[in-house]
Amino acid sequence: MGEALPTEITGRPFGVSLIAGERADTQDVQFDSITQASGATLQPTYTAASPAQVSEAARKAWSAFHAAGLMPPSQHAALLRPCADGIDAIGEPLVALASAETAIEPARLNAELARTTGTLRMFADVVEEGSWVDAIIDRPGAEGRPSSRQALRRMLRPLGPVAVFGASNFPLAYSTAGTDTASALAAGCPVIVKGHPLHPGTGEVVAQAIAASVLETGFPAGWFSFLHAGGGREQEIGEELVKHPCVRAAGFTGSRTGGDALTRIGLSRPDPIPVYAEMGSVNPVIVLPGALASEPEKIARRVAQSLAAAVGQQCTCPGLIFLIDGEGSDMFTKAMSAELELIEAGVMLAPRIQANYTRTVRELLALEEIKVLFGTDRVPAPPPPGKKEVAGPAMAAPMLLSVAGEHFRQHAEFLNEMFGPCALVVQCQNEQELFSCVTAFVGSLTGSLFVGDADVDRAPPFARALEQRCGRLIFNGVPTGVEVAWAMVHGGPYPASNRPDTSAVGPTAMKRWRRPVCYQNYPANLLPPELRDENPLGIERRVDGTLTREPV
Amino acid sequence: MGEALPTEITGRPFGVSLIAGERADTQDVQFDSITQASGATLQPTYTAASPAQVSEAARKAWSAFHAAGLMPPSQHAALLRPCADGIDAIGEPLVALASAETAIEPARLNAELARTTGTLRMFADVVEEGSWVDAIIDRPGAEGRPSSRQALRRMLRPLGPVAVFGASNFPLAYSTAGTDTASALAAGCPVIVKGHPLHPGTGEVVAQAIAASVLETGFPAGWFSFLHAGGGREQEIGEELVKHPCVRAAGFTGSRTGGDALTRIGLSRPDPIPVYAEMGSVNPVIVLPGALASEPEKIARRVAQSLAAAVGQQCTCPGLIFLIDGEGSDMFTKAMSAELELIEAGVMLAPRIQANYTRTVRELLALEEIKVLFGTDRVPAPPPPGKKEVAGPAMAAPMLLSVAGEHFRQHAEFLNEMFGPCALVVQCQNEQELFSCVTAFVGSLTGSLFVGDADVDRAPPFARALEQRCGRLIFNGVPTGVEVAWAMVHGGPYPASNRPDTSAVGPTAMKRWRRPVCYQNYPANLLPPELRDENPLGIERRVDGTLTREPV
Repeated sequence: MGEALPTEITGRPFGVSLIAGERADTQDVQFDSITQASGATLQPTYTAASPAQVSEAARKAWSAFHAAGLMPPSQHAALLRPCADGIDAIGEPLVALASAETAIEPARLNAELARTTGTLRMFADVVEEGSWVDAIIDRPGAEGRPSSRQALRRMLRPLGPVAVFGASNFPLAYSTAGTDTASALAAGCPVIVKGHPLHPGTGEVVAQAIAASVLETGFPAGWFSFLHAGGGREQEIGEELVKHPCVRAAGFTGSRTGGDALTRIGLSRPDPIPVYAEMGSVNPVIVLPGALASEPEKIARRVAQSLAAAVGQQCTCPGLIFLIDGEGSDMFTKAMSAELELIEAGVMLAPRIQANYTRTVRELLALEEIKVLFGTDRVPAPPPPGKKEVAGPAMAAPMLLSVAGEHFRQHAEFLNEMFGPCALVVQCQNEQELFSCVTAFVGSLTGSLFVGDADVDRAPPFARALEQRCGRLIFNGVPTGVEVAWAMVHGGPYPASNRPDTSAVGPTAMKRWRRPVCYQNYPANLLPPELRDENPLGIERRVDGTLTREPV
Repeated sequence: MGEALPTEITGRPFGVSLIAGERADTQDVQFDSITQASGATLQPTYTAASPAQVSEAARKAWSAFHAAGLMPPSQHAALLRPCADGIDAIGEPLVALASAETAIEPARLNAELARTTGTLRMFADVVEEGSWVDAIIDRPGAEGRPSSRQALRRMLRPLGPVAVFGASNFPLAYSTAGTDTASALAAGCPVIVKGHPLHPGTGEVVAQAIAASVLETGFPAGWFSFLHAGGGREQEIGEELVKHPCVRAAGFTGSRTGGDALTRIGLSRPDPIPVYAEMGSVNPVIVLPGALASEPEKIARRVAQSLAAAVGQQCTCPGLIFLIDGEGSDMFTKAMSAELELIEAGVMLAPRIQANYTRTVRELLALEEIKVLFGTDRVPAPPPPGKKEVAGPAMAAPMLLSVAGEHFRQHAEFLNEMFGPCALVVQCQNEQELFSCVTAFVGSLTGSLFVGDADVDRAPPFARALEQRCGRLIFNGVPTGVEVAWAMVHGGPYPASNRPDTSAVGPTAMKRWRRPVCYQNYPANLLPPELRDENPLGIERRVDGTLTREPV
């Protein structure tokens, strides 16, 4: 093992993985981090974790989990707050580095930073309050329960070490210290982060803050590790992690291809593990005729801004817009085009992401059913001959395409996420065709319904269709802007996620890393503190039969 | 479509499927139900559902689900109670028929009947109380929440039509009106039951009671269908159901092969659906040295009775018993053998089940590491030459095998469920070997730990090992006897189930048929009643930030 980790957080990356509180040795496979706005190579060079290092991180997480034993929830809360403080303390260099690595503006990254540390602190509060573990105690002789039965106690218990795969588009909030990591730590699970090759420095610097907090709060050092992944090792490291016997669950945010592959690996183990994958989403926006009649231009401007935000690289980007043809829809598409025209090209997260976007858009344009409503001069150019991607900064400017409702159900490609600043307007002849088009997609993170006064009787079936297909339904609003709140659902039927019964944002995300265990006739000393008769944490608990709540 | 279903419940089967309240037409594929105790064929002959009938049931369930719209929970509760009453009303002929079809004694079936109707009534209470839907309302301006944000409301919403695959060993409690059906109806989902070919008459008679209740309570007739499956169509019907676009989830209780196959089908759809499979289980019993020293014979007798119950055909049958060699373990195995000797051979559920059991036991006996502790004269005989199974009543008598701890980890077969009245005692040299053996299995419905006064310091690591591998942990008790209670967990890591985050027994089983949906800025008329400001149901709701509960 390499050099010991300084407990101070340096705010700068060293280019090596952090395994159980120590800087790992350099390995053969190396890769660079790039300043996306200029194409310039950043220092240092990064070294991808070796198979032995992956295994070491997993085994140390396992040992740490077992060494920890029955911890009171307060201990997990105590880990989350220093993580937040540590990350806040290096906010300035962190945002500068993340902005260089991802081409995301510092202003947006500062908001993302606040959201990231805010989530860590919110989860600490939730863990201390304690009711999220769904503790239920059925005592013999409680009302409605025969006294001859044995006491049954149940609560959610931690799964063990969790592997986290962060996303390229939120280098802070869905990455090293993002909701997956925060929720797993809050749930009492050690975490191993696979670093993202598009922001390795950002990841390593955040990892320093978490690793320092682990040591500072007395957790076993193996409770957290960060593995650099890149240089051709990225996919292998993911597979090694999800196959490792010591890894008990995984969280993934990214492409459908990646999420599907990891899900399959997790399921095909002799002891299958859950992989929670949040993947692509088309985020349909339905603008009903009454809304188009009353304020088409105002709605169009909001949708345009939502589409163009973050150069269209948000998982909640509105990719499909459903309208019924008429005066209102003309005003809508013209206003949306006019608004998009004001927005210039932005630098995308990476040339490889821009190359995917370019291919997707050009494939659509090759179909005769597709028209360009706005942006004929903004069609992204294919990479130069012999190249997979453009060399320089990878730019994209917002565009708007359209397809007639009668053609919409003919090509499955229309249902794919573009992951860039381009939306497809589906222009329908009438309400029946609109309904048929809306029911073509199967799963999305969000669904937006714009409803005017004249739409009162029209709205319910559309709301119902969205409810069956989306995790979050928005009334008269755009999909971007995911609030960290108890009531949030960030998930939805496939392909939005592979586990629509869960959320990747908000406190309920913590439940993913636990499963219920029932203790029958158990003595106090073997029970988790939450389930003991004396209820030292004052947690609200449900008893059987009467279904009343017992504040004890 | 055939004859209309009489609203009175006949208590006798007609041999045809019940689709949306009507008796389906007879089809080509026919099969018989057998009196297991005698091998005699029962009347009538049964007709397996055709592919068109499967599709019809699924489409009618889908239409019913959509026609129902936003129902108040009281309506679902109102369906469950007449189902229970209807089944109770035909209890006598039902138990007689089920006993003939399954060879289970009437006394046990009467208890199972009470449990089945008790579950339906308990779920009705739970639905009316309402808190199980995890309703959360984040209002703008609530404490800890900025007033500029839009209201977010979240609750569990129904998935749609559910396909139910019941088990052979509980013809009432895990079959047509078992927990899967009861919980899906309670959750507001239409149900299509695939009848079990080992008790088709029992299934059809119970289905009559449910179908009559559906009509009586004003639900669309498609809310419930029952499809006979047998005569070579059994597997096909299962596949057709899980592949059908109108089926949105499935519940399965049975073999690992069946559960794995349906799970794969559900996942490989273009729109994957969850299949909740409760499969085989070994139910390890660990008897620590202090317990062996204090009351070896008493524990041995309890474990023997648990093993022999229902001819070893319960999913919680104790299949692996872990001991440390010594005087206590000798007394234990002798007392267990003596107790088993008092128990005579019983009729198994079917010749095909006995044939599987026979093959499993004989494969174990072929291994030189296996010794017979009790029952050398009870080794089941293989089927006659050229036959797959015995002809007459399929009998089995309890047996006890043993293997040395040092050999236990050498054969994966030792971890397989035998599904019959035979257990394997793992005889270890010391505590370290015991721990190593206990950690060999990966998932089980239950784990039992017998602990004596002298075991206080020894118990925690064993309890922890069981906690990571089991759904329910029993202290000084046997695994059989699953209580229907809020705190119950009937599930566990694979292969016990494919979804260890759920339970197949108790009110929490209802959550499997719903997923969370978040409503942002939604108007009252489009919201489910549970989430409206006026809170007509008086449901407790959580607000963001403070995490307090708001009784409204």
